[in-house]
Amino acid sequence: MTVMTGRQGYSKNILKAVDAIRQGKMFLLFDAEGREAETDLTILAQAIKPEDVKLMRKDGGGLICVALDPVACEEMGLPFMADVIRSANEYSTTLGTTVEKGGDLRYDSRSSFSIWVNHRDTRTGIPDNDRAITIKKLGDMVEQVLAGNKVNFGSEFRTPGHVATLRAAKGLIDERLGQTELSIALARIANVTPSMVVCEMLDDNTGRALSKEDAIAYAEEHGMVFVEGSEVIEAYNIWTTNIQIS
Amino acid sequence: MTVMTGRQGYSKNILKAVDAIRQGKMFLLFDAEGREAETDLTILAQAIKPEDVKLMRKDGGGLICVALDPVACEEMGLPFMADVIRSANEYSTTLGTTVEKGGDLRYDSRSSFSIWVNHRDTRTGIPDNDRAITIKKLGDMVEQVLAGNKVNFGSEFRTPGHVATLRAAKGLIDERLGQTELSIALARIANVTPSMVVCEMLDDNTGRALSKEDAIAYAEEHGMVFVEGSEVIEAYNIWTTNIQIS
Repeated sequence: MTVMTGRQGYSKNILKAVDAIRQGKMFLLFDAEGREAETDLTILAQAIKPEDVKLMRKDGGGLICVALDPVACEEMGLPFMADVIRSANEYSTTLGTTVEKGGDLRYDSRSSFSIWVNHRDTRTGIPDNDRAITIKKLGDMVEQVLAGNKVNFGSEFRTPGHVATLRAAKGLIDERLGQTELSIALARIANVTPSMVVCEMLDDNTGRALSKEDAIAYAEEHGMVFVEGSEVIEAYNIWTTNIQIS
Repeated sequence: MTVMTGRQGYSKNILKAVDAIRQGKMFLLFDAEGREAETDLTILAQAIKPEDVKLMRKDGGGLICVALDPVACEEMGLPFMADVIRSANEYSTTLGTTVEKGGDLRYDSRSSFSIWVNHRDTRTGIPDNDRAITIKKLGDMVEQVLAGNKVNFGSEFRTPGHVATLRAAKGLIDERLGQTELSIALARIANVTPSMVVCEMLDDNTGRALSKEDAIAYAEEHGMVFVEGSEVIEAYNIWTTNIQIS
């Protein structure tokens, strides 16, 4: 099959999101009503700056996590945290009964958490400067791995740490429709290193997640792109027919 | 040895901190220069309200974690995350090289992280309402356990989740001087359930942790108690001679 380049078929909004990703700009990613129904502040990991970490913690308020391409996770040796805990069950019988199982989560069949890490060049790992280093270096390692270079994850990162890594499902959005998979699908469409920072947006008045309407209003106010899962699915289907965005 | 009650020997500031803990008020806890040199917003887990979670994420900005008494952790079956990862090493060789080892951390010999959890009554686990439920229920379970009642951790909590649990060192501040141990030592002194929420305070301008001076200014501005590690150590030494604070 020949690869065509062009912007045909893609919605204007997806093309805007692709531009934002390529330019290292923050954008908003909503999954779907009936799933988490949460909006994540989202940015390319390799583009992260301490100010972006600050924006995520001030205006988002959720956990600052790095979604990682499943192929890269396999190469780097990053398993799902749930599998780590299951396999360590003999260590404490509590682990076996506490670890998630099918039907446990109200919005999906499983979480995408892998291990929490700090880059070894950080000090405590939590300030904006430290988290930006950890995030940027995760993106750089994904780039190395996908270029076919050998990497040693443990020589650069330490666990436990202060940045959560998220392992995207192998089948990506055909398998799971969380921000983890949606953001990595968008990175593939944008043809950038598939490693994306996500942070849930919380409501300061209700104690709940920020509503979709309020997230859209935030995006407009800050000149950010707001994109939702259904748009990513549509775009990914076009992309898999080999129409690359020029 | 007879137990005496009174406030003799304790510094005024420690007595204020004890009052804050007993009243479920937020206070500030600095470890020490030369260690993390970080200040944590701190509050009794059983007193947490969604507004407190909001204050921690807005004015703190670090990870919202629950420090737990080591005796309760043993009963609940909560191991150190580093041990979980070490014991799951056969699952991925990356884990063995990434997990912390002696000399890795720049401020202590090891981290106090245990597993990340959500209470099973939460939905996604991240909004303020959800995190407040998880935190409160952790405190309640510690109370149950220390009262000698049987508990089943996995029937109430699920992992992975959005609230980090921290396991205080068995020897408490004789063994480790992190906010984990300092906050639990304070809870023991205050004679409340030893389960405390901590969240690092970050600086919005420098990308670093909030300086001690700025943390003190924040405490003054907000009418909060600011206490540091050395004061806790002094008070704990008095407390272990069986002078209980009335």
